[in-house]
Amino acid sequence: MRKVYNFNAGPAMLPEEVLKQAQAEMLDWHGTGMSIMELGHRGHEFKEVAEQAEADLRELMAIPMHYHVFFLAGGASTQFAMVPLNLLNGKGTADYIETGVWSKKAVTEAQRYGNINIAAKTAHRNHLAYVPPQEEWSLNKEAAYVHYTPNETIDGIEFHWVPRTGDVPLVADMTSNILSRPIDINDYGIVYAGAQKNVGQAGITIVIVREDLIQEPLPRTPTLYAYKTHAEHHSFYNTPPTYSWYITGLMLAWLKRQGGVEAIYKINRRKADTLYNVIDTHKDFYICRVEPSYRSMQNVMFYLHDEKLTPRFLEEAAKRNLLNLAGHRVSGGVRASIYNGMPEEGVNLLADFMQDFVKRQG
Amino acid sequence: MRKVYNFNAGPAMLPEEVLKQAQAEMLDWHGTGMSIMELGHRGHEFKEVAEQAEADLRELMAIPMHYHVFFLAGGASTQFAMVPLNLLNGKGTADYIETGVWSKKAVTEAQRYGNINIAAKTAHRNHLAYVPPQEEWSLNKEAAYVHYTPNETIDGIEFHWVPRTGDVPLVADMTSNILSRPIDINDYGIVYAGAQKNVGQAGITIVIVREDLIQEPLPRTPTLYAYKTHAEHHSFYNTPPTYSWYITGLMLAWLKRQGGVEAIYKINRRKADTLYNVIDTHKDFYICRVEPSYRSMQNVMFYLHDEKLTPRFLEEAAKRNLLNLAGHRVSGGVRASIYNGMPEEGVNLLADFMQDFVKRQG
Repeated sequence: MRKVYNFNAGPAMLPEEVLKQAQAEMLDWHGTGMSIMELGHRGHEFKEVAEQAEADLRELMAIPMHYHVFFLAGGASTQFAMVPLNLLNGKGTADYIETGVWSKKAVTEAQRYGNINIAAKTAHRNHLAYVPPQEEWSLNKEAAYVHYTPNETIDGIEFHWVPRTGDVPLVADMTSNILSRPIDINDYGIVYAGAQKNVGQAGITIVIVREDLIQEPLPRTPTLYAYKTHAEHHSFYNTPPTYSWYITGLMLAWLKRQGGVEAIYKINRRKADTLYNVIDTHKDFYICRVEPSYRSMQNVMFYLHDEKLTPRFLEEAAKRNLLNLAGHRVSGGVRASIYNGMPEEGVNLLADFMQDFVKRQG
Repeated sequence: MRKVYNFNAGPAMLPEEVLKQAQAEMLDWHGTGMSIMELGHRGHEFKEVAEQAEADLRELMAIPMHYHVFFLAGGASTQFAMVPLNLLNGKGTADYIETGVWSKKAVTEAQRYGNINIAAKTAHRNHLAYVPPQEEWSLNKEAAYVHYTPNETIDGIEFHWVPRTGDVPLVADMTSNILSRPIDINDYGIVYAGAQKNVGQAGITIVIVREDLIQEPLPRTPTLYAYKTHAEHHSFYNTPPTYSWYITGLMLAWLKRQGGVEAIYKINRRKADTLYNVIDTHKDFYICRVEPSYRSMQNVMFYLHDEKLTPRFLEEAAKRNLLNLAGHRVSGGVRASIYNGMPEEGVNLLADFMQDFVKRQG
């Protein structure tokens, strides 16, 4: 059992087992007498780590061989530029679905490279946020791609369905929900995700790209921003972030030991349901401002009806070692980020505390 | 004492003290009950780590406040593009000094963004490599900057003097010799260095930029490739590689405990002299193909006169736990990379082995 439960939106909790393994191997990885961070990236030891991580990811997500898998330095913000730089050449226009802060950031960056059409936006009814159904979207059949953010961490809005874009490739920023639930990778042209929420530490981004989307990028695209560079060099064009790759590898192995994505999904679903049940049971006290069918399984975002009580709520939670529950500075409220690394007991303790807090105000 | 000595060109050895501290703090950083890799990048805990690392770097290198210090995701190859993208706007031309594989890579990337003039190249006399003196360089007074690579890891060539470029800013790729010796930062417009050789692990690059060089970049420069983005957001535009930053912080604190750059320079000088002395003493057996005044203090590159003996040399060294001494695949020979993290006892063991190997062939 961990001493504290960290509900931060990311970087976020990692399983104790993963941290203990990293600790045990810190000075001597597999009998080499060296830390994995001291080993050359082109040596057979790190190659083994890198290849195992890719194999485990392919297995967990059932990624066919006509998709490339890259492990790239930097966060998902690199992809806000790389996606348009690599896909807009010869097309010049793309569709974006704007459902929160992160998809807006992706739009702003993409607008520097081409004509960006906002095909749909978050809407509200009865003061609850939702995403309009696809029939109401203004998709452009000539678009180079459709970009969306299946989970928005700040407002706690998540898609529980996959847009159908026909021949136009679908691009998804899965930074906050990769490997949290089963997906069919064949629905996507590109999936990318910074590792620091569900699958490791900050500093590395997984990018899964369908082979036909490895194209000639726009002129003057930096070499490291061209997917074709990474396809040719298998993520080894230059020194990759070896230790971050290793930690992601440990997380992937841990996910396999949990029983894979189906198994972790059941746990994640249960974790989220536990918290939303408390909110709905005490709906005169707590409110979630997202329609039930768009509530995030990753970031349970809610408010206290009496917002003056929020600071006390956060303070008392912290005394019970339930940490970093404050909502984002733009949204306020309370946010419980419960990614793969958050153990069920942490969520149960939070649920107990939420109920107890209601009673004590009564 | 380490069990093995890793002479890899990078990622490279880290001091045992640094690894032990990282190990001890893995599950509980400073009593938080969390790993530093689990902590939010905008929380006060990581801010403390980040600010201390910057303060220590500024102290160690005596960096004045009119220089920005960035800690950026990715390796030095990012800077091969960022330097021209940020400095060529309105100028269009830059001078490069080509002294090996790394400076050539910088040239190739820069040529995509402007007119690049190779102002000087490595030359040879008596089969030994050297860099022509500055009087023989064809510098252009209108250049946006002069770029050079003070240490080239593959051929083992290092500048022991600083080019004087007047009003034209000098840009240095110090990936393989940052913090190995004292420098006067005022001689430079920009200094950059991937951390994985002298100051941490792969995945983070230190970039030191004089304030007046924070300029409007070329059109369509990705947001994360613009120095002004990082100047405005102090390296926190997006989630930085927090754990890599932390490890660099531990290295910087360790360097301070060694007595700073002057003290580590004495040790590094002694380490290199020890190996070059063996080479020169046994000059019928070993040969260094670099002029003495350009021999690298970081990468001691040499050949056995009888090249057929090289595989046996490497094999026997490995049996003594002196590892990864093979030269780069393009150069062959033997290369001992002896950065800050390589302890003196490792170098002494290698020197003993080199002498012993000569005797046993005699």
